[in-house]
Amino acid sequence: MPLVTIKIIEGRTIEQKRGMVKDVTEAIVKNIGCPPDAVHIDIVEMKQENLAQGGKLFCDRR
Amino acid sequence: MPLVTIKIIEGRTIEQKRGMVKDVTEAIVKNIGCPPDAVHIDIVEMKQENLAQGGKLFCDRR
Amino acid sequence: MPLVTIKIIEGRTIEQKRGMVKDVTEAIVKNIGCPPDAVHIDIVEMKQENLAQGGKLFCDRR
Amino acid sequence: MPLVTIKIIEGRTIEQKRGMVKDVTEAIVKNIGCPPDAVHIDIVEMKQENLAQGGKLFCDRR
Amino acid sequence: MPLVTIKIIEGRTIEQKRGMVKDVTEAIVKNIGCPPDAVHIDIVEMKQENLAQGGKLFCDRR
Amino acid sequence: MPLVTIKIIEGRTIEQKRGMVKDVTEAIVKNIGCPPDAVHIDIVEMKQENLAQGGKLFCDRR
Repeated sequence: MPLVTIKIIEGRTIEQKRGMVKDVTEAIVKNIGCPPDAVHIDIVEMKQENLAQGGKLFCDRR
Repeated sequence: MPLVTIKIIEGRTIEQKRGMVKDVTEAIVKNIGCPPDAVHIDIVEMKQENLAQGGKLFCDRR
Repeated sequence: MPLVTIKIIEGRTIEQKRGMVKDVTEAIVKNIGCPPDAVHIDIVEMKQENLAQGGKLFCDRR
Repeated sequence: MPLVTIKIIEGRTIEQKRGMVKDVTEAIVKNIGCPPDAVHIDIVEMKQENLAQGGKLFCDRR
Repeated sequence: MPLVTIKIIEGRTIEQKRGMVKDVTEAIVKNIGCPPDAVHIDIVEMKQENLAQGGKLFCDRR
Repeated sequence: MPLVTIKIIEGRTIEQKRGMVKDVTEAIVKNIGCPPDAVHIDIVEMKQENLAQGGKLFCDRR
């Protein structure tokens, strides 16, 4: 605890993920006051055909 | 908001997903009264070996 | 299966929920072709102070 | 209901999954008193590069 | 890791929860071979009016 | 997208939540390069009796 789930569109590099989990963990520790090791993050990568807003798949938008 | 997650068994076509997100969004807008663009949907496709009911994997059922 | 989770802001009436689960179930059955009884829905009601977009809590927006 | 989601690191065999869903279902039925068929489980397999603790990706640890 | 989420209908006693997390943890450790301390469980208690199957709220069934 | 869920133990102040969603959003924008308004966060507050590690409820630990 805290347990963080981040859903993003697939295609990020491992460097982006590495930076994101480091910075998100610091952001939580700073505000919640928990030890860094208590912060667990899982990243869920989504295909554009599995996401929709306003009733439209992302792969169909624009 | 609303944020909708739909877990389905893998193997649906993109046409099925396209129709599903359109109709589910309309169903929510009709009942909740939010703007369509506020409805976010993500679809999670599951393998039969990662689903179970009654203590049995779906790939072992029947 | 399908398993559907709908996160909404708290404060909907039971009539709104009743209509929403009926219509969302029909929308999924129509497109996926599963029996209605296979569709499980859970509704998660969120407080405005537990939701944010663009780095701002909903209770602080406007 | 109950609906159980188990997030594990990818790479388990189907035998491990088969045993896990059987035993987890029994554990829930024993304590909650529901019929076994009411217990739905979905397993989500995660890559090491999509998991982090203490601000570090699992693929970078040690 | 593993991270387990168990959604149940509200109203279980703390003794039921205590037994359930102990037994579910053992069931996972036995099959996956991870240390017990790696197993995190969160229980989500649901109201009957926030659950549906077959398009019907649980509070309306029977 | 991105959609972020943060599960924390209940009892944080609104100031802590306000700071956390601001800083987590910045952390994601910096690394992923999306517009801030694309970042949706929901906070789920958990009771100690609904969380467990190592087969023990948090309310029973120590």
